[in-house]
Amino acid sequence: MLSLRLTSFTHLLSPTSSAAIARRSRAILRRRHHLRKRPLAASFSAQSATAETQDRVNNSKNRVPEQVITPRSQDFNAWYLDVIANAELADYGPVRGTMVIRPYGYAIWEAIQEYLNVKFKETGHSNMYFPQFIPYSFIEKEASHVEGFSPELALVTIGGGKELEEKLVVRPTSETIVNHMFTQWIHSYRDLPLLINQWANVTRWEMRTKPFVRTLEFLWQEGHTAHATPEEAEDEAIQMIDIYTRFAYEQAAIPVITGRKSKVETFAGACKTYTIEAMMGDKKALQAGTSHNLGQNFSRAFGTQFTDENGVREHVWQTSWAISTRFIGGIIMTHGDDAGLMLPPKIAPIQVVIVPIWKKDEEKAAVLNAALTVKDVLLKSGIKVKLDDSDQRTPGWKFNFWEMKGVPLRIEIGPRDVASGSVVISRRDIPGKQGKVFGISMEPSNLEAYVKDKLDEIQSSLLERAIAFRDSNIVDVSSYNDLKAAISEGKWARGPWSASDEDELKVKEETGATIRCYPFEQPKGIKTCLMTGNPAEEVAIFAKSY
Amino acid sequence: MLSLRLTSFTHLLSPTSSAAIARRSRAILRRRHHLRKRPLAASFSAQSATAETQDRVNNSKNRVPEQVITPRSQDFNAWYLDVIANAELADYGPVRGTMVIRPYGYAIWEAIQEYLNVKFKETGHSNMYFPQFIPYSFIEKEASHVEGFSPELALVTIGGGKELEEKLVVRPTSETIVNHMFTQWIHSYRDLPLLINQWANVTRWEMRTKPFVRTLEFLWQEGHTAHATPEEAEDEAIQMIDIYTRFAYEQAAIPVITGRKSKVETFAGACKTYTIEAMMGDKKALQAGTSHNLGQNFSRAFGTQFTDENGVREHVWQTSWAISTRFIGGIIMTHGDDAGLMLPPKIAPIQVVIVPIWKKDEEKAAVLNAALTVKDVLLKSGIKVKLDDSDQRTPGWKFNFWEMKGVPLRIEIGPRDVASGSVVISRRDIPGKQGKVFGISMEPSNLEAYVKDKLDEIQSSLLERAIAFRDSNIVDVSSYNDLKAAISEGKWARGPWSASDEDELKVKEETGATIRCYPFEQPKGIKTCLMTGNPAEEVAIFAKSY
Repeated sequence: MLSLRLTSFTHLLSPTSSAAIARRSRAILRRRHHLRKRPLAASFSAQSATAETQDRVNNSKNRVPEQVITPRSQDFNAWYLDVIANAELADYGPVRGTMVIRPYGYAIWEAIQEYLNVKFKETGHSNMYFPQFIPYSFIEKEASHVEGFSPELALVTIGGGKELEEKLVVRPTSETIVNHMFTQWIHSYRDLPLLINQWANVTRWEMRTKPFVRTLEFLWQEGHTAHATPEEAEDEAIQMIDIYTRFAYEQAAIPVITGRKSKVETFAGACKTYTIEAMMGDKKALQAGTSHNLGQNFSRAFGTQFTDENGVREHVWQTSWAISTRFIGGIIMTHGDDAGLMLPPKIAPIQVVIVPIWKKDEEKAAVLNAALTVKDVLLKSGIKVKLDDSDQRTPGWKFNFWEMKGVPLRIEIGPRDVASGSVVISRRDIPGKQGKVFGISMEPSNLEAYVKDKLDEIQSSLLERAIAFRDSNIVDVSSYNDLKAAISEGKWARGPWSASDEDELKVKEETGATIRCYPFEQPKGIKTCLMTGNPAEEVAIFAKSY
Repeated sequence: MLSLRLTSFTHLLSPTSSAAIARRSRAILRRRHHLRKRPLAASFSAQSATAETQDRVNNSKNRVPEQVITPRSQDFNAWYLDVIANAELADYGPVRGTMVIRPYGYAIWEAIQEYLNVKFKETGHSNMYFPQFIPYSFIEKEASHVEGFSPELALVTIGGGKELEEKLVVRPTSETIVNHMFTQWIHSYRDLPLLINQWANVTRWEMRTKPFVRTLEFLWQEGHTAHATPEEAEDEAIQMIDIYTRFAYEQAAIPVITGRKSKVETFAGACKTYTIEAMMGDKKALQAGTSHNLGQNFSRAFGTQFTDENGVREHVWQTSWAISTRFIGGIIMTHGDDAGLMLPPKIAPIQVVIVPIWKKDEEKAAVLNAALTVKDVLLKSGIKVKLDDSDQRTPGWKFNFWEMKGVPLRIEIGPRDVASGSVVISRRDIPGKQGKVFGISMEPSNLEAYVKDKLDEIQSSLLERAIAFRDSNIVDVSSYNDLKAAISEGKWARGPWSASDEDELKVKEETGATIRCYPFEQPKGIKTCLMTGNPAEEVAIFAKSY
């Protein structure tokens, strides 16, 4: 069952032969089986005191076989799917293209929600909830909206055993139903601005799916606002893309490039779309969040008007903005490595895992006792900590398991540590010896300060590393040949652009790259369009994307 | 538009003539219009110092017309719909039977989520997310489940422009898809117990709908667990109904009666259903939360097995449990009165509203300054406070508006209060003079203690009042005639019951009442079935219900 489902997904995503797919799927199945069923020593009994240290320093001996996860460099897509399966982030639902978000994956989503929810409320937005069933006629009211969304709609045609008179759309986004309601709630300028958000599921009938990145159903927040002036709407759209940008940098350690979409890539129904674009580990771009200035497109289609201070009826100016569970895919593909997931401390469901180590039964109580004390100290300081005190696995197995799960810091406590009142701390982002520090005092204030400091360091370090990776893979180009060369190397191309929509589509056809955005940060000086040689006001970034 | 939509809803719910409905709908429309457009003095300028006090003592002078909300005693259902509309809790969606949950209503849901989410996690449950589209064949696997749910399914038959090979069910509940996944995740006894929860939307094609109480789509949490033994599953089902009971009593101030459903009323697919039953203001019962012991019904249907400690394959034992946005309807109908909503402090989005009062422009700054100080003091103590400093409305209008919104405490601050360093505090649950205390010192620690104390008092008082109401409306009966008399008076009947399912259905047909539950709290002594005269082990509670 599992192999069948994996096959069907993989099939859509990579050009591998079906024999190879079947082989790999069987292998994944075996590996997962292996991971689960591996017979395990009830304790660390065979290990001498020297071995204890040995194990820490050179834990590859005790590794879960490396091939559990396909190496990232070998096959990025297979690596991605392996990480999701092994770290238990998600699984495939029974309906093609759907995804079950498992507790560890969902906890990342909760961390995203927690941060954004506060920011949305601080900026005056209220949460609410709109029905997910939208009359089909609503979708048709805004011309470019229906053009953009009609190919990917799921339609309810039967309810309570009867054929419905009007088909219902399972919301792909809520602009239409929001405007239907706004029209009833907005009367005068005193009702503006109207600033709301909803956390909801949405459905888009995608043909090529990939867990988190593109699924038939996904979770997101969608903000919707109405304003009295175009300036206010523009300010709002910019404010929200700024919040997303700060979230990406400060919480997810993803150095997105923020900018404006080209006309071709603008949201169906928007005047302007702002975007945050992230570079994944395979250098493909991921659109990780968008904020749209909708102008009066929907208010005209739905008659959403207000009476201004002079008694004149006007259509409202609107925005909408969203971040989805796709962002989790972005986190995996930005920071992960061959050992698995690597999570920025600020969004990690577990920031510190404590692995107690004992060899003799008489050591167990003292070690566990110390581990519990350390856990309490960290919990009290607000650190998300897990003590893995199970008897079922060896410490070596646990080291690898929690590395694979991307936990930023590991604390090891053995009998000698208990004796010396200290612990050993390992960083997930620096493998092996280099990331390991011995003899950190267990004294509460010292330990708390050390751990917090290290978590901050890891957070910054992940961001710096991602910035360096991003910057070394963006090429400044001044001709179409340069652009083609950069794209064919898998890089992003940045160059002046003032050519036509047709030229933009030609680039897409010939190179597979699209304009990701006109970045907000623009180089100074005179610019000449890389395609036409005409003057250009802005540089655009081209890249292949998810 | 609004009147049409109200009409269609009301039509389904009450036997009123359509002319009366149209009249009432137009009236509601006018009233809402009136509420919104009422020309308002920019400040409280016409008021003398005496008038200021007058207004406080006898604020009926300044009332928004009483008839904004239909009196509860006159027409409970109309009152309920008026409260929802006027307090801006919800609105009707464009599709029949759907509901838009507005920010104030959604904030109550957030308070429910906040409390329960913590309790679920404390008891070891993790949040996750299952897809909402379920293959139709899944629903058919558990015989009584399909019988119970198939009449109310919404079916997706078209996706991406194409007729689907298999119809998809928009989840009415998730037992089937959960078991499909559990079958893949559970292998050995080490994988048990598996304890998960999801916050999600669900769809049931109901013919008779009512905002919050019964809508085509609603929000809920659904817990799903799998265990190695029937005892563990039973303990879990009981633990969760206990959590719901505590939530109802301690947070929502609703004195539910907790018990077991009769076989006839048990959830489609469960062995046992536990329930919390609440008595609404019209004495009808509301099933406010349920917890099911599913036994092995779904694990047998879906082959969800584990290997026990002796290497034997066995089917898991399961539970599921849910509370939904229906609970908000329960809060409205338990505590509300003719003035509108009345919210228990622990789930009120706004616990304290501050209304500043000034007559002359030169007083405004000092009054607003004091109001801001008071607001800060309360905010810092963790109290949810709103300062209504708008220039658009008179204090009298504000008093009534926030009473209608159910805010538990109001603080009034006028120029004389500023001079004396004190405030006036009014309780929502005690109308007029009796609920009003003058001269509470603004001194921060005094004010904080006073407000917290009063909020606790209101919380207890609402519960006590609801308990008294409940107890005075439950009649102990020992014969079918007694039962019929009690039900015809609109009360609940409690009596010994050991009769057949057929007799239970006969009671329903003849009286409109159903067994709400066999309560956990049972009277001692010998019992004789009220219907058959045979020995009975338990009393059952009969009532008409939503």
